[in-house]
Amino acid sequence: MSANATFSPAGQQKAIRWYPPSYDIRVESIPFPTIQDPDDVIVKVKLAALCGSDLHVYRGHSGIEKDHTCGHEFIGEVIELGSSYGAVSAKGRPALYSNLKVGDKVVSPFTVNCGECHVCRLGYTGRCPEGALFGSPALEGGQAQFIRVPKGGGTLFNLSNPSTWSSGLPQEDRAKALTGFADSSLLLLADILPTGVFAALQALNHPKVAPVITGKPWPLCFSQDVVGLGNEVDFTQEDKLLTIGIVGLGPVGICAAVSILDALSTRQLPYRIVAIDLVESRRDKMKAVYAAVGADGKGNGEFVVCSVEEAKIQVKEWTNGVGCTAVLEIVGHADALALAYDLVRAFGVIVSVGVHGGDLLPLTGRQCYNKNVSLDFGRCPARAMFPLAFDLLVKRQDVFGGVGTEASLIDKIVDFKQAAACYDEFDKNKVGKVIFDPWK
Amino acid sequence: MSANATFSPAGQQKAIRWYPPSYDIRVESIPFPTIQDPDDVIVKVKLAALCGSDLHVYRGHSGIEKDHTCGHEFIGEVIELGSSYGAVSAKGRPALYSNLKVGDKVVSPFTVNCGECHVCRLGYTGRCPEGALFGSPALEGGQAQFIRVPKGGGTLFNLSNPSTWSSGLPQEDRAKALTGFADSSLLLLADILPTGVFAALQALNHPKVAPVITGKPWPLCFSQDVVGLGNEVDFTQEDKLLTIGIVGLGPVGICAAVSILDALSTRQLPYRIVAIDLVESRRDKMKAVYAAVGADGKGNGEFVVCSVEEAKIQVKEWTNGVGCTAVLEIVGHADALALAYDLVRAFGVIVSVGVHGGDLLPLTGRQCYNKNVSLDFGRCPARAMFPLAFDLLVKRQDVFGGVGTEASLIDKIVDFKQAAACYDEFDKNKVGKVIFDPWK
Repeated sequence: MSANATFSPAGQQKAIRWYPPSYDIRVESIPFPTIQDPDDVIVKVKLAALCGSDLHVYRGHSGIEKDHTCGHEFIGEVIELGSSYGAVSAKGRPALYSNLKVGDKVVSPFTVNCGECHVCRLGYTGRCPEGALFGSPALEGGQAQFIRVPKGGGTLFNLSNPSTWSSGLPQEDRAKALTGFADSSLLLLADILPTGVFAALQALNHPKVAPVITGKPWPLCFSQDVVGLGNEVDFTQEDKLLTIGIVGLGPVGICAAVSILDALSTRQLPYRIVAIDLVESRRDKMKAVYAAVGADGKGNGEFVVCSVEEAKIQVKEWTNGVGCTAVLEIVGHADALALAYDLVRAFGVIVSVGVHGGDLLPLTGRQCYNKNVSLDFGRCPARAMFPLAFDLLVKRQDVFGGVGTEASLIDKIVDFKQAAACYDEFDKNKVGKVIFDPWK
Repeated sequence: MSANATFSPAGQQKAIRWYPPSYDIRVESIPFPTIQDPDDVIVKVKLAALCGSDLHVYRGHSGIEKDHTCGHEFIGEVIELGSSYGAVSAKGRPALYSNLKVGDKVVSPFTVNCGECHVCRLGYTGRCPEGALFGSPALEGGQAQFIRVPKGGGTLFNLSNPSTWSSGLPQEDRAKALTGFADSSLLLLADILPTGVFAALQALNHPKVAPVITGKPWPLCFSQDVVGLGNEVDFTQEDKLLTIGIVGLGPVGICAAVSILDALSTRQLPYRIVAIDLVESRRDKMKAVYAAVGADGKGNGEFVVCSVEEAKIQVKEWTNGVGCTAVLEIVGHADALALAYDLVRAFGVIVSVGVHGGDLLPLTGRQCYNKNVSLDFGRCPARAMFPLAFDLLVKRQDVFGGVGTEASLIDKIVDFKQAAACYDEFDKNKVGKVIFDPWK
């Protein structure tokens, strides 16, 4: 099909664009995108969200000097496919090259990934060498009416065809979820929900956390090849109790909290969680979300939301000064990382999924040695995380389904005219997660 | 029994002692140790070794201002036990409180650990709150004729009674090994062998390495709870090939290399290893050790020993610029850590077991984010690692059995009179691992 006929008579579309050096957001008419490569897909954007990491560019902290269309979180409908799709050459490539169709509803991870190189095969889709971040000078973003998705067969997640991915849920439940869920809920898959799940998953699967979970001492805990230590002393209840810190309660931090609660309740693991933020409104949101999570997603443990100083006292009291088993650092700031180090125990794990700046890490080599600390950094491989994130989305519609309620992650859905005002409010912490509807 | 009778008529013993501010090693007569606590054990030292980390103190880089007896690697014989041993109260405590006997041959980890607190129960024995480093102002060291071992029932490893620990080896093979092995070989258990095994174990068990080993993409690789991603593309041979860097080829680096080779050959995993050092004599030692390792300890892979610049080219060529799956940093220096970062792939793992100084880590937050790097720091929990290290010692007597040969880790066994000269030679890289015999 010809894309031109369906876009707009003038071949123009509306887009939210950023201009250097900083704080300059404009809604403009720009040409609609066209297929540039056989692997490209053109998507009509239904909704696009504003993300905390957009603020790095907005504030001019990224050193970017080129104007571009903003946004890396979007959901939409396929309206045009490059010539790779359905071609004979699609055999042996990612499944979407064979079965993606015009009209399919798709959500995209925040970066492109080919899905078929060495890096993608290993599941490290966030670092595909073909990758580019949507909403950057390298690749126009999703806060527009239409968007070009390079390597669409590797990048996109086809919400109209749940047979294209595996899940812990029955196929029919997934299909029902896909027709019954609001687009604003499914849009959480683009970034914040998989990133939260990624943080939780890394913490709970780190070998240094394994003794607490398995009840077997290190190194016996994490390898079937490893033999017993002899003369070990039996574990007590204290030894089997996970103490977890979550630093930063923006939308990703809240997703991480819900994800970790889900994992702990599913596996019936006892826990104590301290969820920390400097900002009262974020703490209030976290409290409301926790209250909204059903009993099946909480399991059996303590969950405390508090400020930094309160958290230090709480962890000390809970653990006799030992510290947290793991700390999730969801801020992407040196102060948050330093706090995570303060809170974590010896042989503890810090998982950092935020976008960090160019300063040296705020830790000395001696500090790291002295605490035997482990640190896991980096960007969520969102495409690889989609199936897990989707299952959590389905299980926890009690918190991921709403808009504009006390317990919902999304504050409001607005039209493009409010773009500049929303960036400003978001920057000043006056609003939480905002979604743009390009057709409103 | 009374210790006094067996020590020396004058109640004095010889010891190698360090004096501030730096480079001042003296052999002196000091009082022999006595039981100060019911959990203490007095050990007659048979051999004590000089370790690379002793140089931090020797050079005056540790800020230590108090003279003390040196050395944290020693093997010996129990000559006196505190009242806890064999007491009714020993029930429920670590097994050695019940079955350690005068005359037993023991090796000690380089730090004390009680074996029964929360930290020890989890297996993190190197960070026991009761812990202290032998050969420091807090605790007299093992380069002496006699030594007091606090919390001996938790700390010591009883080489005369192999029923006190588990092993992958049959009990009779272990017993045979214990009577047939030289003390100089068993002394490697005190620090360098478990530390090398610890480095190798952390690298091979990190979740980010799991896709390469299991052939399943992340996050499917490391949790049975996790479901498939759908549309994944089949792994190629390249995807299943581990590329590992080892930075620093002192004795611990060589132990790490032998340990990782053993793990890879046991599990029949294909690999490429680049072993790196600035110093030619260390590279030569590594080459000789590799040549001496039997075919059953090498498996099927490439093993290259080279300089820093050669390593960068080698890894680039092997991996098409992607980088190493994991890098072991065995130096404890910012330059080595920076090199490890350069060599490691995106979603790669750096394991650092060296003692680092007080400088900030030489990595920015952005570097860590951009490579999705994971870092595991810290001191080996040597006591917890002993059973694994012992099995490797038994399997690899071809390299861990000798003294003074081209392929042996130990260069020479000398008397105390040569202490000052040996510290000086070791400091200047003129000699490798030296062992002191206090009775020679």
